[in-house]
Amino acid sequence: MNHIMTRLMLQLAVVIISSKILGHLFSRVLRQPRVLGELVAGMIIGPYALGAISIPFLHGPLFPIFDGVLPIQPELYGFAVHASIILLFLSGLETDLPTFLRFSGLGSVIGIGGVVVSFLFGDLVAVLMLPGVSSFTDPAALFLGTLSTATSVGITARILSEKHKMSSPEGVTILAAAVLDDVLGIILLAVVVGISKASGSAPLDWGGIGIIAAKAFGFWLVCTVIGILVAPKLTRGLKQFQGMDTIAGIAFGIALILAGLSETVGLAMIIGAYVTGLSLSQTDIAHEIRENLSGLYSFFVPIFFCVMGMMVDFSSLIPVLGFGLVFSATAIAGKMIGCGLPSLLTGFNLRGAFRIGAGMLPRGEVTLIVAGIGLSSGVIGKDLFGVAIMTLLVASITAPPLLIRSFNGGSGYTRRRRGEKPEAPQQSFDLEFPSQRMTDFIRQEMLKAFKDEEFFIHRVDSSQDRLYHIRKDEILITLVQKDNTISVRTAPEHEQLVRLLLLEEVLELKDLLKSMESMKDPDKMGANLLMGLFSEEGV
Amino acid sequence: MNHIMTRLMLQLAVVIISSKILGHLFSRVLRQPRVLGELVAGMIIGPYALGAISIPFLHGPLFPIFDGVLPIQPELYGFAVHASIILLFLSGLETDLPTFLRFSGLGSVIGIGGVVVSFLFGDLVAVLMLPGVSSFTDPAALFLGTLSTATSVGITARILSEKHKMSSPEGVTILAAAVLDDVLGIILLAVVVGISKASGSAPLDWGGIGIIAAKAFGFWLVCTVIGILVAPKLTRGLKQFQGMDTIAGIAFGIALILAGLSETVGLAMIIGAYVTGLSLSQTDIAHEIRENLSGLYSFFVPIFFCVMGMMVDFSSLIPVLGFGLVFSATAIAGKMIGCGLPSLLTGFNLRGAFRIGAGMLPRGEVTLIVAGIGLSSGVIGKDLFGVAIMTLLVASITAPPLLIRSFNGGSGYTRRRRGEKPEAPQQSFDLEFPSQRMTDFIRQEMLKAFKDEEFFIHRVDSSQDRLYHIRKDEILITLVQKDNTISVRTAPEHEQLVRLLLLEEVLELKDLLKSMESMKDPDKMGANLLMGLFSEEGV
Repeated sequence: MNHIMTRLMLQLAVVIISSKILGHLFSRVLRQPRVLGELVAGMIIGPYALGAISIPFLHGPLFPIFDGVLPIQPELYGFAVHASIILLFLSGLETDLPTFLRFSGLGSVIGIGGVVVSFLFGDLVAVLMLPGVSSFTDPAALFLGTLSTATSVGITARILSEKHKMSSPEGVTILAAAVLDDVLGIILLAVVVGISKASGSAPLDWGGIGIIAAKAFGFWLVCTVIGILVAPKLTRGLKQFQGMDTIAGIAFGIALILAGLSETVGLAMIIGAYVTGLSLSQTDIAHEIRENLSGLYSFFVPIFFCVMGMMVDFSSLIPVLGFGLVFSATAIAGKMIGCGLPSLLTGFNLRGAFRIGAGMLPRGEVTLIVAGIGLSSGVIGKDLFGVAIMTLLVASITAPPLLIRSFNGGSGYTRRRRGEKPEAPQQSFDLEFPSQRMTDFIRQEMLKAFKDEEFFIHRVDSSQDRLYHIRKDEILITLVQKDNTISVRTAPEHEQLVRLLLLEEVLELKDLLKSMESMKDPDKMGANLLMGLFSEEGV
Repeated sequence: MNHIMTRLMLQLAVVIISSKILGHLFSRVLRQPRVLGELVAGMIIGPYALGAISIPFLHGPLFPIFDGVLPIQPELYGFAVHASIILLFLSGLETDLPTFLRFSGLGSVIGIGGVVVSFLFGDLVAVLMLPGVSSFTDPAALFLGTLSTATSVGITARILSEKHKMSSPEGVTILAAAVLDDVLGIILLAVVVGISKASGSAPLDWGGIGIIAAKAFGFWLVCTVIGILVAPKLTRGLKQFQGMDTIAGIAFGIALILAGLSETVGLAMIIGAYVTGLSLSQTDIAHEIRENLSGLYSFFVPIFFCVMGMMVDFSSLIPVLGFGLVFSATAIAGKMIGCGLPSLLTGFNLRGAFRIGAGMLPRGEVTLIVAGIGLSSGVIGKDLFGVAIMTLLVASITAPPLLIRSFNGGSGYTRRRRGEKPEAPQQSFDLEFPSQRMTDFIRQEMLKAFKDEEFFIHRVDSSQDRLYHIRKDEILITLVQKDNTISVRTAPEHEQLVRLLLLEEVLELKDLLKSMESMKDPDKMGANLLMGLFSEEGV
């Protein structure tokens, strides 16, 4: 037992250090997303690369190829699974579905288009090219279709923000489409896992699929509706425990239980975690839970990406390299066509449609989770798992240059919606603070102020630069925190409102300051000073 | 694999929820330490109690008795081991040994006395009462001796704080003695693990023990000295990675590596983690690392205590119940005599000596870690592991009433040290803030200000109420944060200094306020407003 634990600790150490370093390298030096660095770190240190080198005092390699379905130790995989649940729980917490649906409109159509087309394309390529896969309902084909659907919008959001295009028609549409994308991708996963569990590895007929799909979607819907209905009562119950620590812990525990339950009823674990997050996303403790778990997030999530990278077996990837390239290209085409066509039909010109398609290209955690579930349940092999990672890398690296170039040029939106004004230049102000800690604090207070005013807050990028989309009715505000600076951007007509909200913060801080300043002058300290002045016994 | 993971997630869920709820119950309702609640939660849900009940959809119990050295799944134990490393790494980070040694004096003598006497008492009772243990150097006897040495001063610190006795001679002495206690307990553990690994389960002769003890202590000393020497350079290197996330992650990764290495060279893992913390404790990033890992801490540490509780097998405890009671009584007597006698010899009267002895009674994480290592390496059985938990509970529950009663009455210190004034009533002021978040922020800023002034900051209670001991030369300040309130307490002659330090904070906040207030008036916004006003393209 001690021997296993020693190895686990050394493995975790190498995973944490390498993913932190490569994440840093990718994000700060190569200007690529941090998660790609973490993924690549896993490939480098994994059992199929450096991890296979024998280390004398360990009497073997640090990451021996584990003799099981997965090539890594179950103890280490336990950390990765745990990480995926944290990821999806927080992702659900950030969604606030009912509020979102009020803003969706155009975005939903485009999101659905992208999901449907890329699923069909992925499934089709698998049927056409993979030996042994002869039916559209073959579980392997379904998994490949599913993993090409989910967009990870972090990369896009950062580029939009840098180009000051977050509130352009394209920007708003992409961000809305991506939210729906997550939801749809997860429902799709539920259906696909249900099918693959029901059928083993033999394809089902369409009738059987219909029933399973209806069941999986029904389960998802019922859980979500019940969750949203129960959430306010649950929140009141949780508030009995003073201390956000306890509340956040129990809320996360509930997510773990629902994760476990959804696995036992034949769905994937992350679905339970996501539904729990979604249910709690509307409550007033959602933001607190998120902040409370952010320490866990930044510890576990790199482990997740790194461990996923570790499972890439390069030698088994070689025979399917051709397929992988075609599949990656199809995944790109799927999003371009699936999102581009509905964009063209809803008022964007070709330039705008291209921007939206390019913005929806990057893949992320959901793709990895789908691939990991496929691998661990034996539906896809090491070769197709490698293809999934390859697709993620190709799609995510292709997107930024396409996107940056596409935004040079005129407007991408031709039709005006009623009453809409032309895209106005935005007001932007940067606030710099003396320390990161102070900046974090002010940012949290600002977001809380917006939330109290019933704004819909969407954290669009969960990497180190914190990027938020804040919406209410016609108002759209972008808030970015980079180290010590907070940048707020909005249309000129809403500038006054934003200032007023920030003024509230100033007033609150002023109260605070007054209470501290009074301490300078002993006479003014009054009651404060008299309390607890004398202990019970005289000396 | 999926089946194992589902069980792991459900287990974690039950562990997290039950330990949060019982921790809350113990701390807020029963006024007992939170960790006792977490430990009891583990006993209730563990494989020897409720956890054994079969659950239909799991096709068996949630916590089946695992067929191995430990009764729980290795994946779950992995989380607990990880937690113990976080605990000891942070505990090392809080120690700041070189600065501490300047203040130790009296405390060290009393700390050493408590460790030596309770070790000898524990070892002796084992030899006298346990069948099959015939020698003082029998590994089981050594483990029992070791686990009765470590004091956990959190409970005592809270009582001292509530009684306004943190800076009484007894209070200062207890807190200093407890720091040394941790260090000595860990060195002792290193020696004992070394002996038990070298000898299997057969006792060694004294010569062999001497050599192993010298080696283990030497290893510890060399690592600590090298660590402290390397730390400044390492810190400079780490600072290359902007972002405390990355820095804290890598620092923790290094702790994991040293933990793994110290296990492979024949010491216990936690020693490497503790030494890493100790080495970094003097650097200017220590406080930041601690704050950054506090989310991990509050997630993992309840898991640790709960999992330890789960391993208590009540049926195997029954035959050794008599031994357990004697052992617990001896553990109490060991601290009372071991700390009380040196106290009497160094100027305290009987009352003071009793206070110090009672304050050193509570046991905590180090006891559990020692017992866990003994169990997992097979040196002690389930029965003696139960005895360890029993001792911890008895000692920790006995201490508070003794301590509270003992502080009614006159001074416990008779001899005045040169130049010392009689114990003065303390100045105390409470600051209340509008939100927990703001309070957290202000507390961190205050501590940073003290740290910048080269104060020695010691967090004496790591439970939810944050309790700090801040020292420099003759100055002693106590800072407690309870939810939205910060209480600062100090002697009247140092009040002005504390106020001045807080004034610095006020000034810093004033700057901040000014920069925010300027936003009210568009004319004053100046450069801020002009930046990023126009995007590249005109519309």
